[in-house]
Amino acid sequence: MTYFEAITQKISDKAVKIGVIGLGYVGLPLAVTFARNGIEVLGFEKSEKKAEAVNAAQNYISDVSGSDLLKVVNETKKLIATTDFSRIKECDAVIICVPTPLDKFKKPDMSYIENSCIDIGKNMKAGTFISLESTTYPTTTENFMKPIIERESGLQEGGDFWLCFSPERVDPGNKDYKTDNTPKVVGALGEEAKQIASALYSLAIQHLHIVSSPRIAEMVKILENTYRLINISLINELALLSGKMDIDIWEVIEAAKTKPYGFQAFYPGPGIGGHCIPLDPFYLEYIAKNYNFDLSMIHTAGAINDLMPYRMMNKIAFALNRYKKAMNGSTVLFLGVAYKPDIDDARESPALLVMEQVAKKGAKVLYHDPYIAEVTDEQGTRYTGSELTDELIAKADCVVFATNHSCFDAKRITEKACLVVDMRNVVKSVAIEDGKVFKL
Amino acid sequence: MTYFEAITQKISDKAVKIGVIGLGYVGLPLAVTFARNGIEVLGFEKSEKKAEAVNAAQNYISDVSGSDLLKVVNETKKLIATTDFSRIKECDAVIICVPTPLDKFKKPDMSYIENSCIDIGKNMKAGTFISLESTTYPTTTENFMKPIIERESGLQEGGDFWLCFSPERVDPGNKDYKTDNTPKVVGALGEEAKQIASALYSLAIQHLHIVSSPRIAEMVKILENTYRLINISLINELALLSGKMDIDIWEVIEAAKTKPYGFQAFYPGPGIGGHCIPLDPFYLEYIAKNYNFDLSMIHTAGAINDLMPYRMMNKIAFALNRYKKAMNGSTVLFLGVAYKPDIDDARESPALLVMEQVAKKGAKVLYHDPYIAEVTDEQGTRYTGSELTDELIAKADCVVFATNHSCFDAKRITEKACLVVDMRNVVKSVAIEDGKVFKL
Repeated sequence: MTYFEAITQKISDKAVKIGVIGLGYVGLPLAVTFARNGIEVLGFEKSEKKAEAVNAAQNYISDVSGSDLLKVVNETKKLIATTDFSRIKECDAVIICVPTPLDKFKKPDMSYIENSCIDIGKNMKAGTFISLESTTYPTTTENFMKPIIERESGLQEGGDFWLCFSPERVDPGNKDYKTDNTPKVVGALGEEAKQIASALYSLAIQHLHIVSSPRIAEMVKILENTYRLINISLINELALLSGKMDIDIWEVIEAAKTKPYGFQAFYPGPGIGGHCIPLDPFYLEYIAKNYNFDLSMIHTAGAINDLMPYRMMNKIAFALNRYKKAMNGSTVLFLGVAYKPDIDDARESPALLVMEQVAKKGAKVLYHDPYIAEVTDEQGTRYTGSELTDELIAKADCVVFATNHSCFDAKRITEKACLVVDMRNVVKSVAIEDGKVFKL
Repeated sequence: MTYFEAITQKISDKAVKIGVIGLGYVGLPLAVTFARNGIEVLGFEKSEKKAEAVNAAQNYISDVSGSDLLKVVNETKKLIATTDFSRIKECDAVIICVPTPLDKFKKPDMSYIENSCIDIGKNMKAGTFISLESTTYPTTTENFMKPIIERESGLQEGGDFWLCFSPERVDPGNKDYKTDNTPKVVGALGEEAKQIASALYSLAIQHLHIVSSPRIAEMVKILENTYRLINISLINELALLSGKMDIDIWEVIEAAKTKPYGFQAFYPGPGIGGHCIPLDPFYLEYIAKNYNFDLSMIHTAGAINDLMPYRMMNKIAFALNRYKKAMNGSTVLFLGVAYKPDIDDARESPALLVMEQVAKKGAKVLYHDPYIAEVTDEQGTRYTGSELTDELIAKADCVVFATNHSCFDAKRITEKACLVVDMRNVVKSVAIEDGKVFKL
């Protein structure tokens, strides 16, 4: 029996054992989804704390159902987490779900993928199928992963192991689309890999879209998020101009949305956040340099985005200025620090960048976020959230809506506040005192 | 009875007489739509030829139904066209549907709107409602139109006449959305104007979206088309990079489209065409200068678009080069010169710009377009379309798909051709000889 026949048989018997490297917001939902479908999953995690939490069925990812986790850990025992990467040898397939951050120079930090490939190469058995889900620049699977795994394992891609890229499409907080019902793009290297990938992911995912190569799949994910970056940057730029022209950009967007074809609405804000849109386009910008190619749209969009927190800091300063107050010495209360509404994640949140700038200019910065008890900004300054009392609102020289959590009571807050800067159109339906609310 | 009461009464009695200035691809469908709904319409047109055609019920706009035109001209006699602008005094409401081109320096040519305002101001009676549908920069209605009409008429906006901006949303060739069932954004100046606009347009349009001012409505149209410009430019830039990286951008787009939220597909091509997307964003860029504001996204997107015809010329040159042929002396056959599929309009078509460049480099340029018998490029060179015979295809050194008309038989053309440059993914489903087809 060839390696190919062996793994194919195991998948068809649902006897395949899958390793998932990285039990974060991508890996844990994926591991649970396979386990729920009766597949044995070994979750590899460098953090002992996380591995222990999983094994105690303690959920730490809001998109994972706690009861699902309980079931696959305690009841069916299909999911086990481990910090012992030598156990990769037990797995027939390994799926990598590690971060690919950017460093301070917007260069992709490939160390997580690299280390995963080394762990796999050192420990895997021949005949293993390996899939990468982490967003990265096109050609990573073929030109970056493959040589590392071949070097570490002494095995040959194609005959001894197979490679695949299948981008995660996790949208934190999305109520409709979860891991299992979000169509999944799969790009494997070679015909055998394509067949294995298709059979394997079909065990847990409802709709697969098979493309002809890993680099196509790598580009797909970047296109999706570059589309978002440039459209958010465009609307931010138009919002800034609209402010000067006495045009309410939010009203413009609502009206444009009535066009029944050829338009998709994006909304302005203090910048972009999360773990995809601020990063993914810059992987492509990085690899494009290798082809002497300047991605001017990404570059321009990135520049607009980078400036937004400063523009927002200015907006707060000039709102205070209207009341003859300086930023220095004023108290500024931020409402919402999550990077998007109704989630508990402040990673890459533009609110933090605005807070940092406002604090630098001498303001006393407070924040309230019902989902986030404390945050640390990029400079390491730690903030503890405040309770949203009437006193707190009233005593702030300026209240800033930085995230539009749906639980915010815009009417109450606007009434109690002496000055509001609204970066998210939270105050839209409230009759507002002229000059009291400054909208983006 | 006040002017306001008078016009309101006439609208409610369907006894209002509407003047439509400009009987082009916006004005004629609008005039016919009102007339179909039993409203008397006087169509004003500088071109005697067009006015005569309308009065003879000879249709020249493909989005207008010939039988509708016949009915409102010959049967109900609700639509009459005239070149006599003094008859504006017969109208209770006047709707301006004239072009707003850009000059060679991408400065808006406001002369059509200006002349319409002069014609209206000189001829209208007091109590006239005036609406502009031509795309233009925000503040045009208030700051450009109003003073001209007041000066020419001696009347006062608000009391003696009313102003409104309601952008046309005509999408030539769209089978689902026509003038009457495309939601219409309406921004009038003042409360009375808002009420009149709403009542008047409701006579013929199914869904109105009323916004608070003309400048909001002006910005809406620009946002819609700027969105398209920047997304087409992005995908063109990514297509050029993808070519260098051996990535089929068309396959990438098809895969990205499987994302069920947060993505809208745009396709690459030799540039953008038509009478909206290449123009509208630059009205905004023009007025933004007045606010010392640089619209970097529009600027960057415009630059990519401007370069596309040259890139496409290069693509053709290097495809020929593969067969050791120089552009100079080669015969290049363009298939499709319309700016989008299945329409008969070559205005601002990028195909023409590519043809111009290819001809400049010494190639013999031929074209075939089933919908367009002859075209003239920006330099005034006139081309007559050829019949698409097997001989014509075979004798061309290079066949270029410049527009993806759905009637093109990609298989036949690719088989007969010795070399194909495909800028529109026409050849996608055909088994292609390696090296014979060069895709964008």
